[in-house]
Amino acid sequence: MHRVRLPALMDKVMSAADAALLIEDGMTVGMSGFTRAGEAKAVPQALAERARLQPLQITLMTGASLGNDLDKQLTEAGVLARRMPFQVDSTLRKAINDGSVMFIDQHLSETVEQLRNHQLKLPDIAVIEAVAITEQGHIVPTTSVGNSASFAIFAKRIIVEINMAHNPNLEGLHDIYIPTYRPTRTPIPLTDVQQRIGTPAIAIDPAKIAAIVITNQPDSPSTVLPPDAETQGIADHLIEFFKAEVTAGRMTNELGPLQAGIGSIANAVMCGLIDSPFENLSMYSEVLQDSTFDLIDAGKLRFASGSSITLSGRRNADVFGNLDKYKDKLVLRPQEISNHPEVVRRLGIIGINTALEFDIYGNVNSTHVGGTKMMNGIGGSGDFARNAHLAIFVTKSIAKAGAISSVVPMVSHVDHTEHDVDILVTEQGLADLRGLAPRERARAIIENCVHPDFRAPLQDYFDRACAKGGHTPHLLREAMSWHINLEECGRMLAS
Amino acid sequence: MHRVRLPALMDKVMSAADAALLIEDGMTVGMSGFTRAGEAKAVPQALAERARLQPLQITLMTGASLGNDLDKQLTEAGVLARRMPFQVDSTLRKAINDGSVMFIDQHLSETVEQLRNHQLKLPDIAVIEAVAITEQGHIVPTTSVGNSASFAIFAKRIIVEINMAHNPNLEGLHDIYIPTYRPTRTPIPLTDVQQRIGTPAIAIDPAKIAAIVITNQPDSPSTVLPPDAETQGIADHLIEFFKAEVTAGRMTNELGPLQAGIGSIANAVMCGLIDSPFENLSMYSEVLQDSTFDLIDAGKLRFASGSSITLSGRRNADVFGNLDKYKDKLVLRPQEISNHPEVVRRLGIIGINTALEFDIYGNVNSTHVGGTKMMNGIGGSGDFARNAHLAIFVTKSIAKAGAISSVVPMVSHVDHTEHDVDILVTEQGLADLRGLAPRERARAIIENCVHPDFRAPLQDYFDRACAKGGHTPHLLREAMSWHINLEECGRMLAS
Repeated sequence: MHRVRLPALMDKVMSAADAALLIEDGMTVGMSGFTRAGEAKAVPQALAERARLQPLQITLMTGASLGNDLDKQLTEAGVLARRMPFQVDSTLRKAINDGSVMFIDQHLSETVEQLRNHQLKLPDIAVIEAVAITEQGHIVPTTSVGNSASFAIFAKRIIVEINMAHNPNLEGLHDIYIPTYRPTRTPIPLTDVQQRIGTPAIAIDPAKIAAIVITNQPDSPSTVLPPDAETQGIADHLIEFFKAEVTAGRMTNELGPLQAGIGSIANAVMCGLIDSPFENLSMYSEVLQDSTFDLIDAGKLRFASGSSITLSGRRNADVFGNLDKYKDKLVLRPQEISNHPEVVRRLGIIGINTALEFDIYGNVNSTHVGGTKMMNGIGGSGDFARNAHLAIFVTKSIAKAGAISSVVPMVSHVDHTEHDVDILVTEQGLADLRGLAPRERARAIIENCVHPDFRAPLQDYFDRACAKGGHTPHLLREAMSWHINLEECGRMLAS
Repeated sequence: MHRVRLPALMDKVMSAADAALLIEDGMTVGMSGFTRAGEAKAVPQALAERARLQPLQITLMTGASLGNDLDKQLTEAGVLARRMPFQVDSTLRKAINDGSVMFIDQHLSETVEQLRNHQLKLPDIAVIEAVAITEQGHIVPTTSVGNSASFAIFAKRIIVEINMAHNPNLEGLHDIYIPTYRPTRTPIPLTDVQQRIGTPAIAIDPAKIAAIVITNQPDSPSTVLPPDAETQGIADHLIEFFKAEVTAGRMTNELGPLQAGIGSIANAVMCGLIDSPFENLSMYSEVLQDSTFDLIDAGKLRFASGSSITLSGRRNADVFGNLDKYKDKLVLRPQEISNHPEVVRRLGIIGINTALEFDIYGNVNSTHVGGTKMMNGIGGSGDFARNAHLAIFVTKSIAKAGAISSVVPMVSHVDHTEHDVDILVTEQGLADLRGLAPRERARAIIENCVHPDFRAPLQDYFDRACAKGGHTPHLLREAMSWHINLEECGRMLAS
């Protein structure tokens, strides 16, 4: 079989159920998978099945979110004691919020750094999806790299899932670079989005490969929604802003390397660039979505660097069936590198991420509904926003048919502080916060981003807070009142 | 005069009052000065004097805080329309909090990056304190580098204050490195705290030097207080923790490059290392305080890299009078480099910074009293904490004779999120938050860091919040009640 090219490993081929037996109660397990792409599929399913009969619990680390309802199956089977660093599953979310699964919400660039420093327990075993194992016994990932390389390096044993559903031509797409150990760490040599600095496969001692499982199951399609009037409005405001930046001489017509968070709004913004005047664009992002390939097809995007490819059903066959068409314009990197502060700062990324809510001073909540309930996790937004050339956060100005304003007096949870947020955009407009003091930020945000139904109440809050004083004026008795109203009456404001 | 070694510049020597006339109403002015060290002194004083008769307003950018009551004088004279990126003056603080001065509170590594990208208005004029101007017309800074190099490079005109009160032997201490422009920026080549990567003086076109003012006024002495029982307790807990890290094999006996924020607590912690078992220590910090030199004298510290030297009156004559004794163990860098995320992440800094308050989930407020009133600014704490090997925050568990608990249900302002905080220390004990979920963090913090008077009420809040649920359990109606009590009754809890 040309997918396992080191013959000595052929006797490691076994069923998923047998391989799953290598995972024992109490273990820490590192699995491939990033934004529902390239996750190991059969072994976690087998593990969940076994756990239904014979209870066991593990700490599960991944790159980011898993597809194929794996987090749901593992949660329902009671397998997850601890989970990091990101997830998007509604069943797991419920378990996190009722306190039955301990979720460690991390900057996506930091998990393997903490492992490398032994600040987190190293994985006992890694489960990595691959398109092939090379002649040297090295692992060629599939549609994501995520944390797979470091998990495989750190784990004592590795289970490889060879997924026949993936195009073997994915080989050559990956660039595996692992930072050297401190105190003799050297600079990450990456100075351009298209530069290759590593190896095409994950170099490990093949003796660590304890099992090989052959699978044939596709990635889950992305759940991105098509652009609507509001997301189109957000895209339009942002493109006008970029045009003004070019006119002001702060960017060229190539903009800068673009990063777009996962999800419908960021995808819509990227789609908006198709009909823009900008040319020869590049991406340095985590996830490459449909919009990446739409931009390539439109001749707008010269190169895209990511850690995963997550496509809709429509786009999937199209891209992976014609991979040669795209291959020289793509690279997939470990998430430590795709999100690395050193590289983000050096390249001058334009980071576009989605906010759950933001407040009149520009603090952003990306994670916690009502200050308490985890939605997904901070993901890579902090990796990018802190060091970006432009840290942009986007959201629709209202939610739940107007019951909720996405702009509030004080956010109920802070993921990105006022110091790290440059630009806020809703379908109402764009607030440019660069170089502004808090009172000035509030004026720009209330004027530009707030839905008309909430503008007067926010202005009133701000005016009364200013009368009381402070660098960042607030009325502590009222600061959370909109969230309390929502919790107690189902609306932020009495109608 | 050997202090101005380019003879053509001698005719630029003038009085401070004449030089100050170069600063016009509405200008943006970049001045030297970082942690009350190396600030231009005579020109801002002359500017304040002039403004009392002839009102004018400027935007003032510095490295960080100024000494010699300059911010007070400039505020009282009505000179400051806008001020960035940091300050510590009580008069200016009042003006910031009543809204009469617009203060832009920034990560100290980011100001010049935003200038370089034209996201802030470039300084019209720079005012830089120097020990000398070289034969090439380059500027040799004094006791701080701060943002002086980039201000001098960006400004159209430069006023140099040659301060005769500084030891001319400071020349050779500085290492001026300026990152190259995007999109062709290269890695910062620094891989060791003691490495020199730049030039000993600020290279500018000497034709930009519009005025030279000769001064003779020392830096203000630091206001650091000697260690007390509480700061000693904090130091003791931290040293025990470091010992355990060494035992666990996560650090060597040399620890890692240390960063310590300005102020009495961080200084006391560093002093605590004198009697520790650790050897061959190094610092990669912003400000070098008395403790740095105490550690060198004790044979504990092999090298210290900073952006400024700020000493007590006692230590000042001692260090600067015997500079040869220390010079090969010191380097002063631009604050963009001393605080650069790329370097901080590469070197694996142990960052020790002071919190104003933190909450049971480990979010840290470094800046805002009662969520509204600015104290000083975030300074470099965010530059270090986000990318440090260990992000440590320290504070005394109570303030104002027990009216205030430094540990609260929810912080009233967030500067450092749960994602960026590894270790919290008060005199009560140390909470190691690495790898913990929020509910686990709360247990560690309540058990270890809280003053006994506040432990039961915090535990009660946490228990009731957990009963309600959520990944980060909170009761929004009570979350800020301690701050509201303080504001309204002078105490966080009824006594």
